[in-house]
Amino acid sequence: MQEIVVDATQLHNFAQTLCEKAGLRPEDAEQMAELQVQTDLRGVHSHGTRALPGYLNLVLEGKMNPKPDLRIVTEGPSFAVVDGDNGMGHLASTFAMQIAIAKAKTNGVAAAGVRNAGHFGAAGCYSIMAASEQLIGFSTTNTGRVSVAAPGGAEAVVANNAMSYALPTGERHPIVLDMACGASAWGKIGTLRMYGEPIPHGWLLDDKGQPTDDPGNSRLLAPAAGPRGYGLALVMGILAGPLCGGLMASSKDNDPSEHFFMAINIASFTDYDTYVAELQQGIDKIHTSKTAEGVEQAFLPGEIEWNNYDKWRESGIPIHRDHLQSLADIADRLNVAIFWKW
Amino acid sequence: MQEIVVDATQLHNFAQTLCEKAGLRPEDAEQMAELQVQTDLRGVHSHGTRALPGYLNLVLEGKMNPKPDLRIVTEGPSFAVVDGDNGMGHLASTFAMQIAIAKAKTNGVAAAGVRNAGHFGAAGCYSIMAASEQLIGFSTTNTGRVSVAAPGGAEAVVANNAMSYALPTGERHPIVLDMACGASAWGKIGTLRMYGEPIPHGWLLDDKGQPTDDPGNSRLLAPAAGPRGYGLALVMGILAGPLCGGLMASSKDNDPSEHFFMAINIASFTDYDTYVAELQQGIDKIHTSKTAEGVEQAFLPGEIEWNNYDKWRESGIPIHRDHLQSLADIADRLNVAIFWKW
Repeated sequence: MQEIVVDATQLHNFAQTLCEKAGLRPEDAEQMAELQVQTDLRGVHSHGTRALPGYLNLVLEGKMNPKPDLRIVTEGPSFAVVDGDNGMGHLASTFAMQIAIAKAKTNGVAAAGVRNAGHFGAAGCYSIMAASEQLIGFSTTNTGRVSVAAPGGAEAVVANNAMSYALPTGERHPIVLDMACGASAWGKIGTLRMYGEPIPHGWLLDDKGQPTDDPGNSRLLAPAAGPRGYGLALVMGILAGPLCGGLMASSKDNDPSEHFFMAINIASFTDYDTYVAELQQGIDKIHTSKTAEGVEQAFLPGEIEWNNYDKWRESGIPIHRDHLQSLADIADRLNVAIFWKW
Repeated sequence: MQEIVVDATQLHNFAQTLCEKAGLRPEDAEQMAELQVQTDLRGVHSHGTRALPGYLNLVLEGKMNPKPDLRIVTEGPSFAVVDGDNGMGHLASTFAMQIAIAKAKTNGVAAAGVRNAGHFGAAGCYSIMAASEQLIGFSTTNTGRVSVAAPGGAEAVVANNAMSYALPTGERHPIVLDMACGASAWGKIGTLRMYGEPIPHGWLLDDKGQPTDDPGNSRLLAPAAGPRGYGLALVMGILAGPLCGGLMASSKDNDPSEHFFMAINIASFTDYDTYVAELQQGIDKIHTSKTAEGVEQAFLPGEIEWNNYDKWRESGIPIHRDHLQSLADIADRLNVAIFWKW
């Protein structure tokens, strides 16, 4: 068995303890654990606790601030910019999205940028925060260095930035689109490599800009849908970049990241219940639509992830042994006992 | 020769006259001509004057209001909803984006929705309005009925909605991403059919959800990059849809459209000149980046279109004879003389 099933609450407590032992404040450690385990529960392990050892090593190496003082650099009726004080991106991002939500509830729409913070995990975490309060949420981030080619390009010119929309649907889980702008998220390629599965042809390019049949070591991604993914990657890297006082991807090395959040208050624009009723009948039509042979049903964006979430909250989360081993390694370094049996 | 080169100013005056003769107010006719010829100049003929006969026929058939009274249904510090009074989408959309720009200049970020209006042409027209005033612009629209399949789907469940971002770059033209969420814009497929060129394999699907080798009559599009394009189409159809008091695509027949606009005031977030300087050096790196064999250079989103614009403003716009014939037909109906020689 490549995987071990672990209990979500135990994983949460374990992740929280690791963060505290590394020097984070208890409430910040709780927030990190909450977002990362939520992400594992949705099956997006690459952006959940699998990323935690990397973050904590940065703290232990003195490269990331465990106790950031988050500061609003500038703000107005429908915008704000937060300085993350070189702390975990999750903390500044949660703070920024909370600001955007509060301002949007008052004024209709609001955006907040984050500068000088670390990686923020899964973009969906923050758009979902807005959707949980009956707002439409949008989040994006830069992912540091360039790794995606332009159409026809043979070198990386944009970063593989992520973007997410979350839209409330009433009593059901929100619609959650969470996508990379390259042909794949790097984390997903990491997962395929970890499971020893092939990487789909066309995702990775060689140094002449051609799809490579030896994708093992390529660090150059094709853009998703050519000019669309390239264009979105560039735009997202400007929203979560120069707009927030940061750099273009092509200037970045291992600089801190920028993130960008937006919230749209549905009730400002229209009657919320009418919006929900219209969505629900549209969703029903998608769910009952005709599919190609061998395809069970059409799903909403994020729905497969929510199905994992509902199931795994009860039955536990299947996690790859390599992922657990890296958690055990950092736990060992921090003198924390692991809770699972090998 | 399939094409005839026409002067942009003459085309503008001709389009304006057609609109006036169909019953539009002179200032509205001027605005229609301005946006449509700008779109032709950027080479996006499908969304420029080629669409004009269709619009004017709706007016002549009494299905569209030539003299809409645009009305703000609801507004607040950073949002507004405009009722387009069943007039040309371009008019309500220009008004809505102007509102979003004005509110964003004051408050940092703002959005405006349009309900009850016609097709708005090219999404880029409105995002560019914001970029021309040193704001980042976003626009999206629903395109009426469903025409794009979900991943694995065999029937249309989302519309082929368009979305556009425009970002100012200082003295140069803005970066303009203007994309459909399906594998192609329908207008582009129309253009390929008009020029007798093949339609790339994989764009169109048959009624079993399989890529079709006989794409002549298919009305079912694959989504761009699978779940990404499907997800974006669904999200855009909710922003420009139920959020503005409209319907989901799956409920639509030939109902009026909704449109949605957003403006982000860069100077609220950061120093504008620093933003521009950072973008310019990033753009230079893209322009000088290594390309695959046979590819001249990497372009910015919208740059090829701006190159057309700069060239054709001087030398005239090459327009397909079928496109001109349809303009001649509506001109004949409206008793307007054509200005080009066959």
